[in-house]
Amino acid sequence: MNTRFLDACWGKPVDRTPVWLMRQAGRYLPDYMRVRSTCTFLELCKTPELAAEVTIQPVDILGVDAAILFSDILTPVEPMGMKLDFVPGPVFENPIRTMADVEALRIPQMEEDVPYVLETIKILRRELATKVPLIGFGGAPFTLACYMVEGKGSKDWATIKKMMYAAPDVYAALMEKVTTMDMEYLNAQIKAGAQAIQIFDTWGGVLSPVDYERFVLPYTQRLINGLNRENIPVIHFVKGAGTMLDIVKQAGGNVMGLDWHCNLGTARDIIGPEMAVQGNLDPTVLYAPKDVIEREVKRVLDENGGRPGHIFNLGHGILPTVPPENAIHMVECVHRLSQK
Amino acid sequence: MNTRFLDACWGKPVDRTPVWLMRQAGRYLPDYMRVRSTCTFLELCKTPELAAEVTIQPVDILGVDAAILFSDILTPVEPMGMKLDFVPGPVFENPIRTMADVEALRIPQMEEDVPYVLETIKILRRELATKVPLIGFGGAPFTLACYMVEGKGSKDWATIKKMMYAAPDVYAALMEKVTTMDMEYLNAQIKAGAQAIQIFDTWGGVLSPVDYERFVLPYTQRLINGLNRENIPVIHFVKGAGTMLDIVKQAGGNVMGLDWHCNLGTARDIIGPEMAVQGNLDPTVLYAPKDVIEREVKRVLDENGGRPGHIFNLGHGILPTVPPENAIHMVECVHRLSQK
Repeated sequence: MNTRFLDACWGKPVDRTPVWLMRQAGRYLPDYMRVRSTCTFLELCKTPELAAEVTIQPVDILGVDAAILFSDILTPVEPMGMKLDFVPGPVFENPIRTMADVEALRIPQMEEDVPYVLETIKILRRELATKVPLIGFGGAPFTLACYMVEGKGSKDWATIKKMMYAAPDVYAALMEKVTTMDMEYLNAQIKAGAQAIQIFDTWGGVLSPVDYERFVLPYTQRLINGLNRENIPVIHFVKGAGTMLDIVKQAGGNVMGLDWHCNLGTARDIIGPEMAVQGNLDPTVLYAPKDVIEREVKRVLDENGGRPGHIFNLGHGILPTVPPENAIHMVECVHRLSQK
Repeated sequence: MNTRFLDACWGKPVDRTPVWLMRQAGRYLPDYMRVRSTCTFLELCKTPELAAEVTIQPVDILGVDAAILFSDILTPVEPMGMKLDFVPGPVFENPIRTMADVEALRIPQMEEDVPYVLETIKILRRELATKVPLIGFGGAPFTLACYMVEGKGSKDWATIKKMMYAAPDVYAALMEKVTTMDMEYLNAQIKAGAQAIQIFDTWGGVLSPVDYERFVLPYTQRLINGLNRENIPVIHFVKGAGTMLDIVKQAGGNVMGLDWHCNLGTARDIIGPEMAVQGNLDPTVLYAPKDVIEREVKRVLDENGGRPGHIFNLGHGILPTVPPENAIHMVECVHRLSQK
């Protein structure tokens, strides 16, 4: 198996910088669209053979150094007692607003409530055995709570922030319950065979640094501390965290995911050598001509300056209208330009 | 006239920290909604008596230390030859995509093409004479170009970024033309009586620091250098710029606007004492109970630590569903807690 990705997570030397793309199993790939046209998004998440098929596609097509489980961060929230739909963004029919709403939430039994996720992981470990490692993942407690309270995506997340400020006890009770669920969910993924875990905090960056520290950090910290991490590196990605990397770092984990708003070198100086980093090309660079893609890949590699513990990635998910050949070119550039 | 705001812009000592709110003339005010119900948004922008009326409302209702012209950043773009509508977000029927599109744009004659903006300023200077100073404003060239190229708002601004990377000559020609227009527009506002200018770069922060430096900084710099700035302080606000304040600072201006993603004290350390700052309370804090609003106002004042050259503001526009009494309370807290 290609161990470049896992080695870099642990800060070990590698022959070339490993690379994968957030949302690499996605709509920009015609092969994905072919599978997706036969079912709904949720059906795809819940059918292990299909979820495994689209997980493997980018490994073969792009030549990336890791696969990431195809699923949705809200998958384990549904069996907490929340009716989930995609229209196409996620919508919960019954958003959480009161202490009674929080008390009514149950902690799922992972083997019974999300068996398809664990089965997908088992299939993938067999099929990827000689290829690349499998990354499991989940949403960070705050990002999950954002959707649970708002009921859908939001521009300013005012409802959950209002809860934080005006009903801190309800907010804390919700976050405790979501954190417990998250920990059991990710540990079930590890038990099923996930070889690394990425925690996505897509909305952690909508808060001020002081609010992040007060309302998010303690929960993500408890989550990461509660994972069965022996031999399993944890990647923590908070989008929009460039102004508070010193605080986010306190959550723990082995690798910090970086979006494209920070200079990767400056970020590493702040974070320190004890954590690896993952990132951080602007996803829109994949719309550029091939020579610009190469120049920008080189720039990110240069910002890292040869330090061990760098996993190349985009600063956010690949966009649905990117030409696949540009993603292939990016992966090729990373491998070629970083060759020792 | 209350000169607290202008004094702080120049870094002079003040008796209390001046305060105003971005989008303070807006939908959260019932008085605004009453006027707005009689006409469309564009009609309101183009009718000097009404635009002046809603500009003054928050001065009387909130007790803020400055008024800001009621208008829209896209107002001067329409007479460049672009059909503008609000549905309710801005939409251009004919977005800019080619060099021919750029060449077809004209530079408006401000006195003839946007007379209502200049007339509104003249009315306001008379009516505000004994009250507070009047801030004029415009969009930064990049933010204007974002709407001109995309044709509407966007989540990822992929079309303009694609132009940057794949057709840098078209992008540069567009930015040159928009910068020239912007300079003439803001100088016309100064000539009509604006006592300070705020430049809004709402989307500058969607770029990586290196792309901001390459594709935005030179134009904003040329704009600010070209303003008739004698006695007229310039506030430069780039949303999402917390990771590149050192670069944004090079654009010039007297005051840097800060969003809520950075710690105001840390930001001042980066920017240095030669520029004042404006900000930076998270707008959603205005949904909080009164004691939390007071605590958060105090926190921002404490982060400034008594340094001269601080104008209190939100980190972005006030949200439309905020209770007006909370905005009044915020202004009162700023004045009371900062009293020398």
